[in-house]
Amino acid sequence: MEKPRIVEVRQGILKKNDQLAGGLRARFKSAGVCVIDLVSSPGAGKTAFLEETLRRLKELGFRVAALVGDLATENDARRLERSGVPVRQIETHGICHLEAEMIERNLEGWNLEELDFLFIENVGNLVCPSSYDLGEDARAVLHAVTEGEDKPLKYPTIFNSSDIAVVTKIDLAEVCEFDRAACCENIHAVRPNIPILETSAKKGIGFEDWFEYLKDLKNGAAARSNSGR
Amino acid sequence: MEKPRIVEVRQGILKKNDQLAGGLRARFKSAGVCVIDLVSSPGAGKTAFLEETLRRLKELGFRVAALVGDLATENDARRLERSGVPVRQIETHGICHLEAEMIERNLEGWNLEELDFLFIENVGNLVCPSSYDLGEDARAVLHAVTEGEDKPLKYPTIFNSSDIAVVTKIDLAEVCEFDRAACCENIHAVRPNIPILETSAKKGIGFEDWFEYLKDLKNGAAARSNSGR
Repeated sequence: MEKPRIVEVRQGILKKNDQLAGGLRARFKSAGVCVIDLVSSPGAGKTAFLEETLRRLKELGFRVAALVGDLATENDARRLERSGVPVRQIETHGICHLEAEMIERNLEGWNLEELDFLFIENVGNLVCPSSYDLGEDARAVLHAVTEGEDKPLKYPTIFNSSDIAVVTKIDLAEVCEFDRAACCENIHAVRPNIPILETSAKKGIGFEDWFEYLKDLKNGAAARSNSGR
Repeated sequence: MEKPRIVEVRQGILKKNDQLAGGLRARFKSAGVCVIDLVSSPGAGKTAFLEETLRRLKELGFRVAALVGDLATENDARRLERSGVPVRQIETHGICHLEAEMIERNLEGWNLEELDFLFIENVGNLVCPSSYDLGEDARAVLHAVTEGEDKPLKYPTIFNSSDIAVVTKIDLAEVCEFDRAACCENIHAVRPNIPILETSAKKGIGFEDWFEYLKDLKNGAAARSNSGR
């Protein structure tokens, strides 16, 4: 009885989000800023990965900024501010994902034309963020070796709506008995040909490849099969 | 404009779920089965913890069964069946949490009076499952040392709606530089006095304390401050 109404309301929300995201995408393109949405489970290491990304891109001369989403606390923004780049926290107050409207509202006062890259750290959740387009150029799904190898099969939508998969905490691979081949096979089973990087923010591993990807993305050379998702 | 309608529909869903969960709770009580809902991030080790729990409780002479929720795949049910107890997979097909109606539907044909404990492994998600009562006697939130210490502050609702916190993968504490004291402090900041156990399914650590808790719960001796949540 109730189901059709729920579906209808949900489609209304997603449609409205898609419209806003389309506007954001046009705005980002016109400003020349390349936007990356980072999604993962809670605790997969998004913040550590982003902190290292911001710090090193800044050193390389890129103009970067970040929006970070969490249900509660401003811990991540405080932590990321150490990298010396503009960072804003989006507290969702119980909402389990970021929406285009939250992004739009939190960009106020920022001059996007002065940025090369804008990173969006989504709420830690392998399910709900997959449905919400934020106007990004690419969605990067992070997957920690500590989570095991089967997550791509169990949470297929977030993997098959992403443009790149970043395996994190690779320094713990051995102690976790992480099976690289099985993980890559599972990622490619749900999203054939997606590039997969192996990284460790703690040990500084894999960032050169990540920056190559970002530069290609900015130059339009990387595949963006989901843009306009 | 759209917000009030969404809130109204959401409240309708939750109200209907609460009614169904109330019915389930009465049914569980009447059958004498103690029901535990396991919640956590994806990859926190729910399935490994549950596998060890089922295997050892069975050896101890308890009659146990499990329902396991996932967006996709029957991997967990196949894995848990190795423990030799009745297990059923609930594939949610994209829904990010279990609901009372799914539990009710999947109990068909099981004689609850023949069970001491029924475990429900929720979908890996630190947000949405917190809103859905499943009629359980206790909700156990699992938290892996690999996730860091700040998750209770970032995802307060799932912690403050739980009755026990189970720290998992404690064998990796040292290599992850896990700060036990900070983690316990953060858990107690959002949920004062909640019991906290340290466990490792891989090394068989902490299960005696877990079983003591379960026996107390079954005998009505453990606190159940959230029952009828």
